[in-house]
Amino acid sequence: MSERDDAVGTVYLVGSGPGDPDLLTVKAARLIESADVVLHDKLPGPEILGRIPEEKREDVGKRAGGEWTPQEYTNRRLVELAREGKSVVRLKGGDPFVFGRGGEEAEHLAEAGIPFEVVPGVTSAIAGPAVAGIPVTHRDHASSVSFVTGHEDPTKDESAVDWDALAATGGTIVVLMGVGKLPAYTAELRAAGLDGDTPVALVERATWPDMRVATGTLDTIVDVRDEAGIEPPAITVIGEVAATRDRVVEFLRNDGERGGDA
Amino acid sequence: MSERDDAVGTVYLVGSGPGDPDLLTVKAARLIESADVVLHDKLPGPEILGRIPEEKREDVGKRAGGEWTPQEYTNRRLVELAREGKSVVRLKGGDPFVFGRGGEEAEHLAEAGIPFEVVPGVTSAIAGPAVAGIPVTHRDHASSVSFVTGHEDPTKDESAVDWDALAATGGTIVVLMGVGKLPAYTAELRAAGLDGDTPVALVERATWPDMRVATGTLDTIVDVRDEAGIEPPAITVIGEVAATRDRVVEFLRNDGERGGDA
Ligand SMILES: C[S@@+](CC[C@H](N)C(=O)[O-])C[C@H]1O[C@@H](n2cnc3c(N)ncnc32)[C@H](O)[C@@H]1O
Ligand SMILES: C[S@@+](CC[C@H](N)C(=O)[O-])C[C@H]1O[C@@H](n2cnc3c(N)ncnc32)[C@H](O)[C@@H]1O
Repeated sequence: MSERDDAVGTVYLVGSGPGDPDLLTVKAARLIESADVVLHDKLPGPEILGRIPEEKREDVGKRAGGEWTPQEYTNRRLVELAREGKSVVRLKGGDPFVFGRGGEEAEHLAEAGIPFEVVPGVTSAIAGPAVAGIPVTHRDHASSVSFVTGHEDPTKDESAVDWDALAATGGTIVVLMGVGKLPAYTAELRAAGLDGDTPVALVERATWPDMRVATGTLDTIVDVRDEAGIEPPAITVIGEVAATRDRVVEFLRNDGERGGDA
Repeated sequence: MSERDDAVGTVYLVGSGPGDPDLLTVKAARLIESADVVLHDKLPGPEILGRIPEEKREDVGKRAGGEWTPQEYTNRRLVELAREGKSVVRLKGGDPFVFGRGGEEAEHLAEAGIPFEVVPGVTSAIAGPAVAGIPVTHRDHASSVSFVTGHEDPTKDESAVDWDALAATGGTIVVLMGVGKLPAYTAELRAAGLDGDTPVALVERATWPDMRVATGTLDTIVDVRDEAGIEPPAITVIGEVAATRDRVVEFLRNDGERGGDA
């Protein structure tokens, strides 16, 4: 361990899990309690955010339009608060290192010489399907699972997501930020040779009190989405495993408490 | 919700996280406390297992050689205990639905008419890299991440893992159960066109007190493994993101407490 300036606070990059406060880790719950400041956006959800005292919450999700992008603003703010000697929790929905730009924040902190710690969380990419009764891997149906963003960075020249290759893996495909572009990537996956009957499930606001699940196939899921009015945040899970829900839902007790079929 | 026989207990398929008791979810910690029986194998690790009172622990990890395979034994035992009216925790390392055969257990319970609940956990596939300073996705380097098993089911006729397709995704590849077969799949990925200089990290016993990290490239990692004597359980993370560790490790405080470079 390198030497540490005691005047500088530590930044904790913390995952909140998908939204149910019971799915916070013991460590996340304790750090939220003890932190001087909690920087967050909307993704941790109303239940978790509602438990953090107003005085120490700082919403960095919407901040924009100034000199910096929201991400630049967050990066600067983390450094600023740490240099004031504060103990800072950067709270992110799910896991901080899954499509959460936590990696960029870690690098920015290291460059600025700020000590930080990563506190992994339960990702919505796994928990979303799971609480709907869907295992992302299965000994018989899926020896791999890929997590992919449906909403590619618009500043990139071309889509870096290779849907052909993802289809060719033969494994489960889980799409985050994938509600809006559902028609585009389901079409790409069909064109890549996936069967139109491949089961697909949408899990909206997984583990939130108003969670909803909608199921269909690659061919039908866009209509299903439209009829149910599924909106972000939602997880799309594509593959044979998505059919598990129908086989187990009658005895699955996650649903009874929190939401149900859309 | 369907009707429920009050004489039948509920089975909780619970993820323990990677091993640090602080990374249990609030719910997992509470259920372990309140359960009548906790069925487990070795993967939750010594710290978490050590905290469960001996009287309610049941190790199903090694049970074999009888009439049933270990998995069949576990399935039957879960049903048996629930029918005795017990509240049963089936505790699994990481997340119960990531290469944990939790999906099969869920289906078996549903077939037997036993109510169950899934309690997602922090998977080692994300947390292992994370606590070593490695984000599995990155805005600039990886718009997808694939989790794959290195240890294919030996009863399958041919390997269902398509390393060519995984290489073609251009995203991060995380291999579980991948210590022994490291030479085979690094060779397959090289043959599939991945650069020999692609960064690779091995994270052994992530978040355990004796955690170790070893880094190299696709070309060097087998030697690195051999020199460091890396053993299961370990995570292999392959892709540009693996290089993040070197850039941040000086300020990363996860390592100081729990293990360090191998
Ligand atoms: C910027 S990504 C962050 C992912 C997050 N780091 C994680 O590990 O869950 C945002 C996307 O995560 C997914 N997401 C996050 N929380 C969710 C929830 N409770 N239910 C469904 N999807 C969720 C949605 O796909 C959403 O568009
Ligand atoms: C049968 S799989 C179960 C994975 C588990 N369900 C999860 O989500 O982490 C077992 C493999 O998980 C990985 N693993 C589990 N715990 C680990 C840890 N603490 N450190 C490194 N790898 C771990 C190893 O690759 C191991 O071979």
